[in-house]
Amino acid sequence: MLIYGFHSVLARLRRAPESIRDLYVDVSRDDARARDLLNLANEAGVRPHLVDHARLERLCPRKRHQGVVAIAEASPPTLSLQDVLDTLALPATLLLLDGVTDPRNLGACLRVADGAGVAAVIAPKDHACMLTDVAVQTASGAAESVPYIMVTNLASTIEAIQERGFWVVGTAEEAERSLYEEQVEGSVAWVLGAEGKGLRRLVRERCDTLVRIPMAGEIASLNVSVAAGVVLYETVRQRGAGQ
Amino acid sequence: MLIYGFHSVLARLRRAPESIRDLYVDVSRDDARARDLLNLANEAGVRPHLVDHARLERLCPRKRHQGVVAIAEASPPTLSLQDVLDTLALPATLLLLDGVTDPRNLGACLRVADGAGVAAVIAPKDHACMLTDVAVQTASGAAESVPYIMVTNLASTIEAIQERGFWVVGTAEEAERSLYEEQVEGSVAWVLGAEGKGLRRLVRERCDTLVRIPMAGEIASLNVSVAAGVVLYETVRQRGAGQ
Repeated sequence: MLIYGFHSVLARLRRAPESIRDLYVDVSRDDARARDLLNLANEAGVRPHLVDHARLERLCPRKRHQGVVAIAEASPPTLSLQDVLDTLALPATLLLLDGVTDPRNLGACLRVADGAGVAAVIAPKDHACMLTDVAVQTASGAAESVPYIMVTNLASTIEAIQERGFWVVGTAEEAERSLYEEQVEGSVAWVLGAEGKGLRRLVRERCDTLVRIPMAGEIASLNVSVAAGVVLYETVRQRGAGQ
Repeated sequence: MLIYGFHSVLARLRRAPESIRDLYVDVSRDDARARDLLNLANEAGVRPHLVDHARLERLCPRKRHQGVVAIAEASPPTLSLQDVLDTLALPATLLLLDGVTDPRNLGACLRVADGAGVAAVIAPKDHACMLTDVAVQTASGAAESVPYIMVTNLASTIEAIQERGFWVVGTAEEAERSLYEEQVEGSVAWVLGAEGKGLRRLVRERCDTLVRIPMAGEIASLNVSVAAGVVLYETVRQRGAGQ
């Protein structure tokens, strides 16, 4: 697979340098960021190819590669939900996405999930987006650090995590209670739907509670990655993890 | 100017229908959303042109117009900072962006600013992004509802709003205090910098305080619109406005 952009290539260099088959760096880049990357590659035993811009464009056309492209083996086989649930540090946070089909939105959700310390992002196979290279790029490295797990049936996954003691909170524009009225002790799973459509009925009915994000202006809803930031960081705040 | 996509066209139809010179709607769209828009246009006295997809593509090539395009007069002359400061409902919130040059990020910031009830988004002329059609589209209508004000000098603007009683909080990765340690009574202005670069020195020095958004994972920072969501909604929460 092709990995490009500083964030993504750095993350892979840190995490699994042995999986990088070739590393291409724009020879004309002579800034601190490029030097740091070359140093890290050197320490990791990865020999970079210094090439011109045209070569990078051919390798990775029409992408924001920032002068850095790696050809790497695909990530280690995706973790299963079982693996994740068996190795959680408690209290844990999960993010469930119901119907997020845009790769940019998926990538942005992974990025904020990493920031907020989420253990995994979970989506239903038939109603989600694959981890495409656009998603990986938007995730800025978080596609390497946060497990993204696709499940067959999101409603029964909710049941399974409830049995593990998670409190499952769905977001819905028409919910009566604001998210700030919801105090969660212990592990929590946030469930966000697609913009416009929201959660599907079976998913919504499975949630322990529904809350809304207060909207003060004229627009009806936030972008899903911004909504993820608002709800996940409320959990960070409630746990006092950011102090 | 060209306005396209449901959110943006609906917002303009509600706010200033008289500014719409021509409204083009895909004749093949026969869903609730399109019908609502046509009803609203009818009530507002705007006669739509029902045209085929190819015509819309020529009008508005390579954009996510969703079958709806309006040709409209430019928005009413942008408000000045003075106008905004003179008509604030207190306590007020402002969002200052230092170096956000990507139109998608600007649009996403306007959208979350609308959701969180921000009075205006302010950016320095030489270090910002114009309200391009991509920004307007990403804002999903919020470019019409939240004033976007470009100022000559952001540091002196901070001084001006401090004189009006605003507490000015900058975000910086290396700040010692977390944003959750910052309790704000009264009006607040949040200052966010460009990803990677952060706030410029003069801007940073002008802030009353600096806080960081806690980052639990491997990535160093959030996308600027997600960061805006996290800080602006913390203000919403502290004011109890969402209850």
